[in-house]
Amino acid sequence: MRGPDRRLAACLAGLRELLDTRCSTGQSLRELHARDEGWHLPGLPDAVCFPKTAPEVASIVTLCRRHAVPVIAFGTGSGMEGQINAVQGGISVDLSGLDQILEVNAGDMDCRVEAGVRRMTLNTHLRDTGLFFPVDPGADASLGGMAATRASGPNAMRYGTMRDNVLALEAVLGTGEIITTGTRARKSSAGYDLTRLLIGSEGTLAIITKLCLRLHALPEALRTARVHASDLQSLLDYAIALMQAGIGMAKLEVMDEVAVRAVNLYAGLGLEEEPTLLVEFAGSAATIDHEVDFALALAEDFDLPKPVWAASPEDRSRLWKARHEVAHAETLLRPGSRSLVTDVCVPISRIARCIAETRADLATIDLIASIVGHIGDGNFHVSMLIDSGDSREIALAEAAHDRLIDRALAMGGTSTGEHGIGLGKMTHLRREMGGGVDVMRAIKQVFDPDLILNPGKIF
Amino acid sequence: MRGPDRRLAACLAGLRELLDTRCSTGQSLRELHARDEGWHLPGLPDAVCFPKTAPEVASIVTLCRRHAVPVIAFGTGSGMEGQINAVQGGISVDLSGLDQILEVNAGDMDCRVEAGVRRMTLNTHLRDTGLFFPVDPGADASLGGMAATRASGPNAMRYGTMRDNVLALEAVLGTGEIITTGTRARKSSAGYDLTRLLIGSEGTLAIITKLCLRLHALPEALRTARVHASDLQSLLDYAIALMQAGIGMAKLEVMDEVAVRAVNLYAGLGLEEEPTLLVEFAGSAATIDHEVDFALALAEDFDLPKPVWAASPEDRSRLWKARHEVAHAETLLRPGSRSLVTDVCVPISRIARCIAETRADLATIDLIASIVGHIGDGNFHVSMLIDSGDSREIALAEAAHDRLIDRALAMGGTSTGEHGIGLGKMTHLRREMGGGVDVMRAIKQVFDPDLILNPGKIF
Repeated sequence: MRGPDRRLAACLAGLRELLDTRCSTGQSLRELHARDEGWHLPGLPDAVCFPKTAPEVASIVTLCRRHAVPVIAFGTGSGMEGQINAVQGGISVDLSGLDQILEVNAGDMDCRVEAGVRRMTLNTHLRDTGLFFPVDPGADASLGGMAATRASGPNAMRYGTMRDNVLALEAVLGTGEIITTGTRARKSSAGYDLTRLLIGSEGTLAIITKLCLRLHALPEALRTARVHASDLQSLLDYAIALMQAGIGMAKLEVMDEVAVRAVNLYAGLGLEEEPTLLVEFAGSAATIDHEVDFALALAEDFDLPKPVWAASPEDRSRLWKARHEVAHAETLLRPGSRSLVTDVCVPISRIARCIAETRADLATIDLIASIVGHIGDGNFHVSMLIDSGDSREIALAEAAHDRLIDRALAMGGTSTGEHGIGLGKMTHLRREMGGGVDVMRAIKQVFDPDLILNPGKIF
Repeated sequence: MRGPDRRLAACLAGLRELLDTRCSTGQSLRELHARDEGWHLPGLPDAVCFPKTAPEVASIVTLCRRHAVPVIAFGTGSGMEGQINAVQGGISVDLSGLDQILEVNAGDMDCRVEAGVRRMTLNTHLRDTGLFFPVDPGADASLGGMAATRASGPNAMRYGTMRDNVLALEAVLGTGEIITTGTRARKSSAGYDLTRLLIGSEGTLAIITKLCLRLHALPEALRTARVHASDLQSLLDYAIALMQAGIGMAKLEVMDEVAVRAVNLYAGLGLEEEPTLLVEFAGSAATIDHEVDFALALAEDFDLPKPVWAASPEDRSRLWKARHEVAHAETLLRPGSRSLVTDVCVPISRIARCIAETRADLATIDLIASIVGHIGDGNFHVSMLIDSGDSREIALAEAAHDRLIDRALAMGGTSTGEHGIGLGKMTHLRREMGGGVDVMRAIKQVFDPDLILNPGKIF
């Protein structure tokens, strides 16, 4: 055997001793752990492990380190930038077995969970407390994976992202050491913020095994409205005016006409195929009507059609479900295609121009593309439908993708608002952060001196 | 000359060439930069420099590195844990000359400032925009210093701390390199969160030279109320009930009877000398009265006296000014004394018990001591008045301080909510963070390989 093969064989022998059948080299299981929901090429891991505890994760990392085998943390595989693709082979560590909700402290509005707990499982568990965990990236992702990718989603404008809603982490470093990064206190000035350093580190610094999370009170009242107009600019101007009025909103989303068409095909909603704003107002029963009245009056000031209110909770949830599933829906616009989906985030005042220039740019390439955005954060997604066997189409889409990021950076924005760097934006990170990237690389060495954790990502 | 003296002389020669009279070794200027407002022993810097630009800061750091001379960043000296005390000598870098407000983007609700700009200067500058910067540690600190110590204060419960309100930083590393840690985008998933890593690093990783800050809309309406009761527990129960009701509050502060007595002496307010809750409600003119009515009814449910409302803006500001100046006020309770002031932060449900146990503990030592707290975060301050020439008193106070931190850690809290580690809590940090401290030390090496930045702090 060659050196790498011999090392892998020794590592696998150790892993089997540790985990027995919870270490598998079966082809289909490996394929299930080879790619996320993004557009990047798969990377087949050599084996998949299913630990049940943090000490088991630490033992796996220690073994892999001894044998110089890559370790890739796997949550649910719902990422977008290839973070879990095992591009250099190695061991995929599936954390779904770390599935315990350890405690819910309703009085403190916090909870402790293992990293494999999914967000919907947690919210179901919380149902009777009047509390919920608000970060919602669409997919029913694991909370550890959401922390690792600094996930956000539509609720971020009101409740913040994973950055804001994690009080502390337990994590296994690339040395096999287990550390805890904080306490249950809501704020702290004790030393460097290791919690925030691990959030968004995409499995390259440590494997997250436990999280202490902030919970929020469910709003007493919610109202959802939809406004459409042929003119995207006036919709966005209206959205910004709503924000600046300090209205209590939980979500403020935009879909362009292509995204609406996709959702209509997918869910048969029969929406007008025009740029559309979705707004969710949240507040107390006593005050929400004031805010809704204000929003209605403001729409008139902007010469927009009267907002359409979701009449029932079912209507409301159908509307949001459509928004959430737009990624799946749009493939119906070109059956058999794959979506090159990306995201950028710009200062809010620039989002209208950034979307308009992006639409104009997309019109010059012959690909179906849709835009949806979290307006409240200046964050939007572009999805281009490509034939993944057609290198010309891929090149066209990738070039448009580069131009999009240049555009966002030139407007004072970032190359990714919520998807992360992963495999897809490594060159853009350098353009955005300059010498900061070298600092990041050096920090990586501190946590993972042998560079075994998720190699080939971010840098 | 001995080696250290020779190195210092060479460094000073270089600094004078660079800065001319903006590098001073005058005794009185050095003494003004030798200690903050906390209780720690002073540390006299060998010189004080007054750069005006980030490149000048970089040149100072580069010179100091070449000659192995410590560099201590100085904002306004309003810290509490000796962060700016030059305990190993070296060059105090006074950043007050970096005083430009570079841009205010009202539409994006952000601004860019140099690190020496003070928070009140910024808020005065913003007066006509309807926006403000909410983080308020009491003192009129510099924004760079506030970021370096992860400052917060009463507004943190609604608006967050410096952690939450800084979008990006420019900073000079211990190598002299200048980096930028982010963009103006409100969120990002691009690489490791260097912004949050520098926030709270107390001048040990880098010297912050510019900040991009989030701004907030000034609330349309504010109401301030005061409730007092002989029984601290029922006041805190009421406070927690207000929080759990999701009422729009900006501040929720408690003062014990000793703190109220101090404030009465200082400002002649004539408040009842009992534990006192101060609440500031913030919201829209249309909705705030609903919330105030709710708060009044709730006080009745808790058998509390009717809250007393500040009738005029002047009353309101006098009340908050008293709260802010409690630190100065309490020295009137024992003229000539110095205050050993500290802070801890615990899960909110524990704060009543933690304060009660702390009061009981303080009763066993023969020192005047007061407690004030930011209830909304579970954060409170204890101030013990000592004769700084009396080693017995110092020992008693330090032992009570240790017991306080043990108590907070045992309740799932942190050794400091907002003051930082500095000189005062280095041993406690190890108890709180365990192996995480070694990771922090290794990160320090990345940013500051020759360990010249603020040596003797945190570790």
